[in-house]
Formats: sequence, C-alpha cells, structure tokens
Amino acid sequence: MQDFPEMQNNLLLKALRGESVDRPPVWMMRQAGRYLPEYMELRRKYSFFERVETPELAAEITMQPIERFGPDAAIIFSDILVIPQALGLEVTLNEGEGPRLPNPIRTAQDALAIRVPDVADRLHYVMEALTITRKRLDGRAALIGFAGAPWTILCYMIEGRGSKDFARVKQFCYTQPEAASHLLEVITQTTIAYLKAQINAGAQAVQVFDSWAGLLGPEDFSEWAFPYLNTISQAITEVPVILYPKGSWYALERLSFKTNAAAIGVDWTVTPEYARSATRNEITLQGNFDPSKLMLPPDQIKAGVTRMIKRFGVQRYIVNLGHGILPNIPVHHAGAFIDAVKEYRA
Amino acid sequence: MQDFPEMQNNLLLKALRGESVDRPPVWMMRQAGRYLPEYMELRRKYSFFERVETPELAAEITMQPIERFGPDAAIIFSDILVIPQALGLEVTLNEGEGPRLPNPIRTAQDALAIRVPDVADRLHYVMEALTITRKRLDGRAALIGFAGAPWTILCYMIEGRGSKDFARVKQFCYTQPEAASHLLEVITQTTIAYLKAQINAGAQAVQVFDSWAGLLGPEDFSEWAFPYLNTISQAITEVPVILYPKGSWYALERLSFKTNAAAIGVDWTVTPEYARSATRNEITLQGNFDPSKLMLPPDQIKAGVTRMIKRFGVQRYIVNLGHGILPNIPVHHAGAFIDAVKEYRA
Repeated sequence: MQDFPEMQNNLLLKALRGESVDRPPVWMMRQAGRYLPEYMELRRKYSFFERVETPELAAEITMQPIERFGPDAAIIFSDILVIPQALGLEVTLNEGEGPRLPNPIRTAQDALAIRVPDVADRLHYVMEALTITRKRLDGRAALIGFAGAPWTILCYMIEGRGSKDFARVKQFCYTQPEAASHLLEVITQTTIAYLKAQINAGAQAVQVFDSWAGLLGPEDFSEWAFPYLNTISQAITEVPVILYPKGSWYALERLSFKTNAAAIGVDWTVTPEYARSATRNEITLQGNFDPSKLMLPPDQIKAGVTRMIKRFGVQRYIVNLGHGILPNIPVHHAGAFIDAVKEYRA
Repeated sequence: MQDFPEMQNNLLLKALRGESVDRPPVWMMRQAGRYLPEYMELRRKYSFFERVETPELAAEITMQPIERFGPDAAIIFSDILVIPQALGLEVTLNEGEGPRLPNPIRTAQDALAIRVPDVADRLHYVMEALTITRKRLDGRAALIGFAGAPWTILCYMIEGRGSKDFARVKQFCYTQPEAASHLLEVITQTTIAYLKAQINAGAQAVQVFDSWAGLLGPEDFSEWAFPYLNTISQAITEVPVILYPKGSWYALERLSFKTNAAAIGVDWTVTPEYARSATRNEITLQGNFDPSKLMLPPDQIKAGVTRMIKRFGVQRYIVNLGHGILPNIPVHHAGAFIDAVKEYRA
C-alpha cells in the first residue's frame, strides 16, 4: 500500500461505514463520459483503447468531473470488458455502438479452457491509473474502483454484445450448466484478484456492476448471479463493496443481509420506501435518480434530488443516478444534480 | 355482432371471469411465430405486411399453433404498430431486424397534429382476420384481440424503434408534456375504438401489451402509463381485458384494484407468491414462464410448468410465458409446455 494524500473529504467513506454525516455524499455513474465537452475532446484525439489503457489519460478523464463539479467520489475511467480481455477474449469498439466481442464463447469446450490469468499484470494500466488519480485527487474525493459482476461478464462473453433477451447466455446456462459455472467461477476469482489489485493501487471502495441482473428471474438470480456476488463481497475485506444489481428489485433483501456488501445500488424502478423496507433500513443505499430526468430543467432536477434525499434519508445514503448518465445531458444539468446535494439542508 | 360457432372450450373465458376450472387454460404469447416451420414457410412467400394485411393469411397464421398444439386461446396474428400506421406514420420492416418508424414524431407541432382516425376503416383487415379466425376456430379455443398500450406505442412513435434507455421519449414527455399527453390521449381513444371493432368482429377477450412499461419508474408509470391503461380498461366493458405491463412489478396492486382489468399478465422477474400477494389473490393472473426456459429439455419444461401451476394455483390463473416465445425454440419444446398444462392434475 502506498502513501497517499490525507483525505479532506470523507463523506463517501463515512456513508459506506454507516457513520453520521451532515449531508449525503454524491457522485454519478459514468460521470466521466460523453456529456462532458472536455471528454469529447480527448475522445476525438484518442481511441477507446488508448483512453482506457493509457494511465495518464484514464486518470485525466477520471478527474474531469471532479474538477468541474466537485462530487464526493471519483470512479476510475475504465470498462467492465477489461476482464474478458484479461481472460483472452478479443474486445472491439466502434465509437457510438458499444463494445463487441467478435469471437464470443459458444461451446462448453471453449468455456472449460478459460483459466484465471495474472490479472494485475494483464491490467496493470488500470492500477497505474488508480495510483495517479488517487494522488491527483489529493483527498478531495474518495476513489472508487470497479468491475462487472460475473453474471454480466458472462453475458458479454457468450452473447458477444448487449442483447434484448439474452437468450443465448441463458441457453448456455440451462444446457451447459457445468461449463457456465466454471466460467462464472473463473470470472469471480479473476475479479477478486482484480479488485484487490485496484485496492492496493489506491481504490478506497469498489463497485460491482451487475448491469444485466434484471434479465434473470428471482430463482435464476439465486443460481447464476447471487453466489458469485456473494463470494466477491466476502473476499473483499479491505474496503467497502457496493453491489449494483440493475433491475433485481427482488434481491435487495438477500444482497443486504446475506452478503458482505457495505452498500446496494438501486435503479429508478424501485421507490426509496421499497428499498429501505426491503433492506430493513440497515444498509447504505445508493441511487436512484432516473438518468432521463436530467433532461428536466435544472430547478426541477434540484427539486427532484431534494425530494429523493428526504425519502431515502440523509444517513446511510449515497446520492447517485439509477444508471449511467446519458450522453446528451446538458453539462449544467449534471451540475445542478451535484449542487442540489451540496446545498441540501435537512 | 355476428353469429359465431358455439364454444366447446370455455377454459380461458372462465378463468378470466374467475369461474372454477379443473385445470388452468394455456396459451403462449407470440405462439404464431418464427419457431413454427409452417409459419416460416409463409414468411418466405409473403412479406410482413402481406401477412398482417391479408385477412386469410393472418387467420391461417393465427390457426397454425391451434392446429398443432391445441392451446385454449388463439391470439390474432397482427402487430401493435398498426396503430401508429392508422395514425398516419410510416412503418417499415426488414425481416429479422424488428419494425422501424423512419419518420418518428420529433416536435410538439407534429404531435399536436395527430388526430383520432377511423380506425375500423383503416385497419379493416384485422377485423376481417378476426371474423375468419373465430369461425375457423369453431369454438375449440377463445379468440384474443390485442393492442399496444399507449405508453409503448408512444415509445415507438417518438423513438422510431426499440431503444436501450428510451431517453428520447422520456425527454419528449418531460419537456413537452402537453404534446405527449395529447398523443397518449389520441392513442388511447384510437385503441379503444380499435379494440371495440375487434370485439365486434369476433374477439372474445383483449390484451393490452405495455411492453416498455418497465422503463418507467413508479411515479412516471402513474403519470404516463397508468391513466391510459385505466381509461382503456374502463371503456372496454364488452369482454374481459388483460393488461400486460412488462417489467412493472410495482404496479400490480393498482392495476388489479383500480382498473377494470379481468387479468394481469406478469413477466418472470415476479414470483407467483409476490404476484398473488400484490394482487391480494383477487384477480386472474397470466404468465410467467421465462421464455428462455423453453430451451431446457422437455421433461424439465414440464416439471417447471407443474411447479408454476402449483405456485399460482389452478383457479384464476392462465398459464403463459412471461414474454413472447423466442424464434429458436424447438417446436416440441413448445408442445411440452402446452401438454404439461393439459396433463396437469391437482
């Protein structure tokens, strides 16, 4: 562990530890992204992989929303598909189209051949970016590392891309359960090593994105998503873990009580009251502003944020969107979102 | 109202009326579709619009799963986008890609210019197909008519196609609420007239598909989806109405108690126990087998169906998938699904 600047802003870590705060911390999923003109400038100059794999660039991009808005957390600029890459799968990207895996896994044989790699070596650039960023943050905001959840990574590794129904990955799980479990286990162990390396490099909390969890019914979630999320949460004892199972409203209770998570991220289809009641008001919650609502006029954004804080409560709460910020949001609308939290008075 | 053959199979209508049955009725959403070789044969000969707009062809396609599997209901072969067509919007289709509206609504002015058409005249071919089908069914199965829900139709009319986040239609609603409400009102009135014409032509129940309801948070659902679903359900007094709000688990209670619906369709992210408890066991429920699970071996499909019936209960229940059947399902797997219900003994 390196010697990092002293924290001046502990809001996020306090909320994650359940300590009392005067106002909730705030950050935005995908806050370093296409809605920012300064990001678009770098995007014109450097390819996606150059941006992700050049530590200086990734750190600069991570810092952009910090310098502009001053949120309470920075999330390292990277992509969940670095894990399939580390596992030996090719990932391509046409800007604006989303990433693709041109040679996804299609057979049990392919799946069973996948082994846990030396992820800290393969993805050293992420760790370097974290260290640079942590220093550059100078304690102004907490630094969050992240990874995709095993189920979501499996979806990409088998579908090759996003899908409407994820029929292929489900078919794989139903008809080749041993190969699917092997892959999920390998992804899980790789992810644990990856998150530990991120923590060692400076990440002060980690978030696990289960973006496609909501495609699973409650029982499939128990079989194909929950055990791996749980293993990760139990293995990461160094820093708080945030689990974000998009769409899995039905899993809030077991994620909060049966894992080692410090916080659960919720999307906007869940009311604050439901989320608090499902988790018996005993865990930190993060979310859940509908990203589309950042298209409302700034005064309505601010009113919406204030109302959301009142409903979740100030304690054990991290203000965030319910999913990543959309590319077409006016910058000052994102600013209004952050400002509303900083101006909040109970 | 015409003189139709006497019903020999009243299972669906009994379940919809809450009358006692020996086993639940069964049908499958999109049961006339691409997984059927006899459908693929017609698909090779006739374009999508020929299939939808030629009453004899639409009737023949509707009958295909009836002749093969003998489910308890036939749903007329058509498409929810006939309503945007009737409202004057162009709809195109490249086979395998899903439909597109190449000139979607983009301004308040465009929206406010849309008026309720003479839908029975514009869509006369659907009514003709219903009448032919009803006669051809000869009472062996109930005939279901359908339409898209106003919110889902609005999504297509503004996005022009399916979308990952439906940011454009939400932006339209948030920034042009009067134009959005006008459109939703016009779609609602058109849909009511359309469903009444379908009933007059032979439909014995109607289903309203809110395929994109789950993209809305609970409060947006209250504003942009619920009132229009409710208006439709109250206006259709002639036959039972099934509301299918995909993804809107949080709305089950109000849909069952505050509308005039006879049944609510549920997707597979909802457990039978949750659905029964949210609707206080007072309404007929329909669903909710994960369509991907039809890729399991037939004996596992049958075990899953039996278990599902036990959990929902035999009364006030219609066995169905949680969404449309997928194109790559082996035909005999679909048969196993239907057979499992027919073989069910309490």
